[in-house]
Amino acid sequence: MSGRVKEFNAFRERMNSRILSTENRPIKRFFGVDKLTYEAGQLEAKTKEMLGLVASMVLRCDDCISYHIQQCKKEGVTDAELFDVFSVALTVGGSIVIPHLRRAVAFLDELNEKQEQ
Amino acid sequence: MSGRVKEFNAFRERMNSRILSTENRPIKRFFGVDKLTYEAGQLEAKTKEMLGLVASMVLRCDDCISYHIQQCKKEGVTDAELFDVFSVALTVGGSIVIPHLRRAVAFLDELNEKQEQ
Amino acid sequence: MSGRVKEFNAFRERMNSRILSTENRPIKRFFGVDKLTYEAGQLEAKTKEMLGLVASMVLRCDDCISYHIQQCKKEGVTDAELFDVFSVALTVGGSIVIPHLRRAVAFLDELNEKQEQ
Amino acid sequence: MSGRVKEFNAFRERMNSRILSTENRPIKRFFGVDKLTYEAGQLEAKTKEMLGLVASMVLRCDDCISYHIQQCKKEGVTDAELFDVFSVALTVGGSIVIPHLRRAVAFLDELNEKQEQ
Amino acid sequence: MSGRVKEFNAFRERMNSRILSTENRPIKRFFGVDKLTYEAGQLEAKTKEMLGLVASMVLRCDDCISYHIQQCKKEGVTDAELFDVFSVALTVGGSIVIPHLRRAVAFLDELNEKQEQ
Amino acid sequence: MSGRVKEFNAFRERMNSRILSTENRPIKRFFGVDKLTYEAGQLEAKTKEMLGLVASMVLRCDDCISYHIQQCKKEGVTDAELFDVFSVALTVGGSIVIPHLRRAVAFLDELNEKQEQ
Repeated sequence: MSGRVKEFNAFRERMNSRILSTENRPIKRFFGVDKLTYEAGQLEAKTKEMLGLVASMVLRCDDCISYHIQQCKKEGVTDAELFDVFSVALTVGGSIVIPHLRRAVAFLDELNEKQEQ
Repeated sequence: MSGRVKEFNAFRERMNSRILSTENRPIKRFFGVDKLTYEAGQLEAKTKEMLGLVASMVLRCDDCISYHIQQCKKEGVTDAELFDVFSVALTVGGSIVIPHLRRAVAFLDELNEKQEQ
Repeated sequence: MSGRVKEFNAFRERMNSRILSTENRPIKRFFGVDKLTYEAGQLEAKTKEMLGLVASMVLRCDDCISYHIQQCKKEGVTDAELFDVFSVALTVGGSIVIPHLRRAVAFLDELNEKQEQ
Repeated sequence: MSGRVKEFNAFRERMNSRILSTENRPIKRFFGVDKLTYEAGQLEAKTKEMLGLVASMVLRCDDCISYHIQQCKKEGVTDAELFDVFSVALTVGGSIVIPHLRRAVAFLDELNEKQEQ
Repeated sequence: MSGRVKEFNAFRERMNSRILSTENRPIKRFFGVDKLTYEAGQLEAKTKEMLGLVASMVLRCDDCISYHIQQCKKEGVTDAELFDVFSVALTVGGSIVIPHLRRAVAFLDELNEKQEQ
Repeated sequence: MSGRVKEFNAFRERMNSRILSTENRPIKRFFGVDKLTYEAGQLEAKTKEMLGLVASMVLRCDDCISYHIQQCKKEGVTDAELFDVFSVALTVGGSIVIPHLRRAVAFLDELNEKQEQ
């Protein structure tokens, strides 16, 4: 069931609009840098998204993990490749990453179900 | 000058031997998993080393950063590609990463000087 | 709608009472130090609450963020000033702070709605 | 009411099975090391579980905290001893730990209620 | 003795120039956002520097702490006010902050000695 | 050679005195809570020091690790038991803990050499 995926993306988009509607320049420019960071440069976008994913996992941010899993899938990362990313995060970050890994896999499964429909 | 590079690697190897000479099984097996994690799987070793590098940068561990920079170079990651990895770490991890970025670039420069000799 | 604000404060107060009802002296004394820390000293309470807020944001604790937003509002911090605090947290802590920023702004909006009623 | 305890354990077990059903060797072996770590060695299992609990608290992972509280109870750690573990976590980790302490105590209370039934 | 202060600033400036001499656009733009963040906005620069300091302390980055102490002094923050900032960092971040507090105070003392000469 | 041990303890004591000589009440009271936390309560001091050590390791603070290793030795924790503490820290905290583990073991070895003299 894709409820969590939809809800996550809706809240994300609504609040991003809300935040970018303020007059705060450093925050607006930070969002610009954030977007630029994942555009293809010396490394292709696919690799950068995997880098964003592993960074999000070791810093243990569920929303960031969900977002980068979606982006990885869009860039053609396979599920087996995603588990390789997960394994680096788990080894570097330790067992404290496991609850986030569980939720990451649950999110991935929901995402796959949604796409099959 | 390659003094810091040599000293870093010597201490690293000496203490790893010291640690693996103990009888503690979970620690020994953890070191085994750590090694296995970076071997080519679904992703090639080059990509995995970049994943290890970005994870080390956002968790802000200078020794881990130095180690993965060396491994990335061995796997053929170019300096320009390394800066793309650095940029993901900086954006995800924030300005708190900057002092580690400075030391990472200083280490990279020492490494390049050493190899030119 | 102020449901989340009320629920948050109710749970917070109930559990604080529960914790302070135990016999554990270091925990009780820690809570005393915590209270003392935000009382006006060389810096006024308003500044201290902003310090508490930015610290909570870079350490990425939603409940702490919600609490300090409430305290900042009580001390007269304006919404535009709060966004300046948010911007320091975002720059120092990186994009990993963004999901917490989204929830912080959502909480602030609920708080403002509640006060308008 | 024991709803949260049951739900937590069910999700945990289901996702662990899902993760261990993949072909990813480093992840599988990491789970093996994780299990081995808490088996009695030079220190008894009771002490190791308290070590796992305090580590989980300062790293602020609610699921890990809930899990180790359950394990501590199984190993015979009393509630008063648990509060001593909590106090070390609070002092080392600071007030940012407090929201996790609140949820830890709430979980402990649910666990005790369930066992009394 | 001001040796550490000079050395710190020299390395910082040299490596910043080195990093900004590369072609990596997200990194360059991040440095721009970082600068903008501390310029007077709704909050004055003095307050923003104190926010940067407390954030650096709870994230435990010695170089960032040293940098913001210098900036705070330039903006007229008194030593007694700095200790108020330190106290918020200590309470929020816990005893793990203490070694960084020791080095912060040692740096502050060196800075004051230097200015007295 | 015990140079690092002596130097570490001398700096620690000198700066603690310096910090406690200020007028800042929350900081002074925090140091009091810190001391109280490790006094025997429901758990004996030996266990509490091991809890402090594992917490310091997963939060990756070398000075805190050195301090608690010394305290553990004073309370009669054997080297083999220390390695059990290290293994919990390594599993929970991940490979990012390894550089701190290397320095912890190097410190322990210096401490043992010093005591043999």
